[in-house]
Amino acid sequence: MKIGIMGFGVVGGGVGELVATNAESIKRRCGEDVTIAKILDLRDFPDSPYKCFTKDFNDILNDEEIGVVAEVMGGINPAYQFTKQLLMSGKSVVTSNKELVAKHGTELLKIAAENNVSYLFEASVGGGIPIIRPLYTSLAANELTDIYGILNGTTNYILTQMIKEGATFEDALKGAQQKGYAEKDPTADIEGHDTCRKTAILASLAFGTYVDSEEVPCEGITKITLEDVKYAAKFGSVIKLLGITSRAENGVYAMVCPAILPGEHPLAGIDDVFNGIMVRGDGLGDVMFYGRGAGALPTASAVLSDIVDVVKHKGAGISLGWEPGKDGYLLDAETLPARFYLRLKGSADSFAGKPGYSVYTLDGEKYAGEFAVVTPEVTGQRLCEMIADKNELGSYDILGKIRLVAE
Amino acid sequence: MKIGIMGFGVVGGGVGELVATNAESIKRRCGEDVTIAKILDLRDFPDSPYKCFTKDFNDILNDEEIGVVAEVMGGINPAYQFTKQLLMSGKSVVTSNKELVAKHGTELLKIAAENNVSYLFEASVGGGIPIIRPLYTSLAANELTDIYGILNGTTNYILTQMIKEGATFEDALKGAQQKGYAEKDPTADIEGHDTCRKTAILASLAFGTYVDSEEVPCEGITKITLEDVKYAAKFGSVIKLLGITSRAENGVYAMVCPAILPGEHPLAGIDDVFNGIMVRGDGLGDVMFYGRGAGALPTASAVLSDIVDVVKHKGAGISLGWEPGKDGYLLDAETLPARFYLRLKGSADSFAGKPGYSVYTLDGEKYAGEFAVVTPEVTGQRLCEMIADKNELGSYDILGKIRLVAE
Repeated sequence: MKIGIMGFGVVGGGVGELVATNAESIKRRCGEDVTIAKILDLRDFPDSPYKCFTKDFNDILNDEEIGVVAEVMGGINPAYQFTKQLLMSGKSVVTSNKELVAKHGTELLKIAAENNVSYLFEASVGGGIPIIRPLYTSLAANELTDIYGILNGTTNYILTQMIKEGATFEDALKGAQQKGYAEKDPTADIEGHDTCRKTAILASLAFGTYVDSEEVPCEGITKITLEDVKYAAKFGSVIKLLGITSRAENGVYAMVCPAILPGEHPLAGIDDVFNGIMVRGDGLGDVMFYGRGAGALPTASAVLSDIVDVVKHKGAGISLGWEPGKDGYLLDAETLPARFYLRLKGSADSFAGKPGYSVYTLDGEKYAGEFAVVTPEVTGQRLCEMIADKNELGSYDILGKIRLVAE
Repeated sequence: MKIGIMGFGVVGGGVGELVATNAESIKRRCGEDVTIAKILDLRDFPDSPYKCFTKDFNDILNDEEIGVVAEVMGGINPAYQFTKQLLMSGKSVVTSNKELVAKHGTELLKIAAENNVSYLFEASVGGGIPIIRPLYTSLAANELTDIYGILNGTTNYILTQMIKEGATFEDALKGAQQKGYAEKDPTADIEGHDTCRKTAILASLAFGTYVDSEEVPCEGITKITLEDVKYAAKFGSVIKLLGITSRAENGVYAMVCPAILPGEHPLAGIDDVFNGIMVRGDGLGDVMFYGRGAGALPTASAVLSDIVDVVKHKGAGISLGWEPGKDGYLLDAETLPARFYLRLKGSADSFAGKPGYSVYTLDGEKYAGEFAVVTPEVTGQRLCEMIADKNELGSYDILGKIRLVAE
């Protein structure tokens, strides 16, 4: 089987490397040789062992020997048009492009099915962690109810530095950039957009109907302070950025937000650039997947696993997909009840003995004018009312607010 | 698609329950209805909603409508003969029977391939955790190097009770039996045999050549004492029963033994009846799978995922398998270097300042006559020599000995 690669950046280079070094085991699993026939990239790579570069997409599109193409160029354009043309011409496409899957996945999966080829995207969520394939194979016998997890390594690295090393958000971000874990423009990571796209893909696949990432409420970690981290530690908890989705009777919930997890929660111990994804089904209970969520070789290994799958299924598209989105299907996350952590300016006196509230203070003069409470279980809506009401919480300035995830 | 079930015990009952409750989602994933046509069991189940029981295996074998049979009866006989006959008659078989897969998997997989049907065993390792399928699909593009994990919920529950509650081994075992986590005869669990079969299955599948579980060195947890647990806590570690296998140039290593893990190791936090399996590949780094390793519904959900896979691949066997075993392929685990924890009777004086050794003592009069050391990295062979040598360790009685797993 001959393959094409579109985009020879970090992931594309990793695919090239893995195909070369693991040729033998890939052949054993596929039953045939897998070789790279063409690589599309506008740049020159004079030092690459590969000599099959092209700058013209048509060289891949029109190469009848190429049966599957790895789209690892990222972004919507021209990846969207290229992918569409490839699928319509009877070539399977595998991708790490979460942006494209989140935006046009419904259409691309439909085109793939109509043309009896596959559109696979194991690498779009969780890097090297197998999560997409288990959702449509191993866990297929379950009614899945909840999926939530740490889906972005950059923000998890920053939070880990804040929790373990006492670094400020700014210093931790700078450190992440120096280590190459964060982009020069870190917006997509720290504002939660990357987590949000992955959450929408998981929700669409697990629950069978498209969820548009642009409609999912999304909050990043830029407002998290060292004080929040310290208060959470006071009650044995840690702050993680989570993508959360769950099925309800009449639709699904989905959101991205910082969340406070108890220290004994399986996701609480997942540090640095690692990802962890928790899946709950009616039969199997909780299952967690853990590993490196990014990086050249882990992501390339996921891309390659999709290629192997296509080769093994030659002549038949691998059926996965979801129904188009519909109005009202994505439910209002503010109606989901939870306990909330609030950091408040002022004196904690009026919370003394208030039923359902736990009150926390930090030692040290600099924390004298503030405190934190954990509220009883309320909806986000109700919490907003409480915050506005002078008699409830409205007499305090809110310095921080984070949802608790209990289990 | 019509299915048969052989054995209507805990797992078989779970399969029946899941097929009924999740009929709709199973149909969505398979593209067709899945219904139970015959259930083989010698017992009567007058209260079951199913009315298709039989006591005669031939009723399943000769039912031409049945395309796949769930063998969830356990044990070698008659499951082995039944499975063989079913595969030879062109029916796929899916199973939770780790004993049978570990013993006759090579032959049964070969018969399945010859007859263009499938023999699948996702439920044989890790209960509801998807681990078998990722090994031959998602991780297929990797050269896998190491697999190790907590594969038995009963022993993990017992060890957790010892670590967290200070229960003795005997009390923890009794508690596990009361809760239904341990059998009346707990030998297979506490002596490590169950972990050993699962380890051999993982090694065979991941590295491509059969490993006979009966040749894998196997030590259970019956010798672990509360003192060992306390010494391990002294250096921030916990004791877990691990199945370990790794690939070397000229063969594989495999063993089952209690191991001391540092507290920050991802497996260290896996408590109670949960399982965790760590897989290391050259491309993806470390990936961990976590979930309930046993129980009716988790295991049934894995059995059912195999059934769904068979239905989706109708007309084509799902190719997996391994080469027959060969002499010398299983390497001597005693040649694998590690640091070891030793609990010794006597005074620690002669270890003061001994290079490479760390010395630990417990407070309290009852521990006055003993201490523990962690040795430098040595092979098991070399350790035996050291223990025999009067000038090294031979002047001490060995009260306990446990391998350390660093990462």
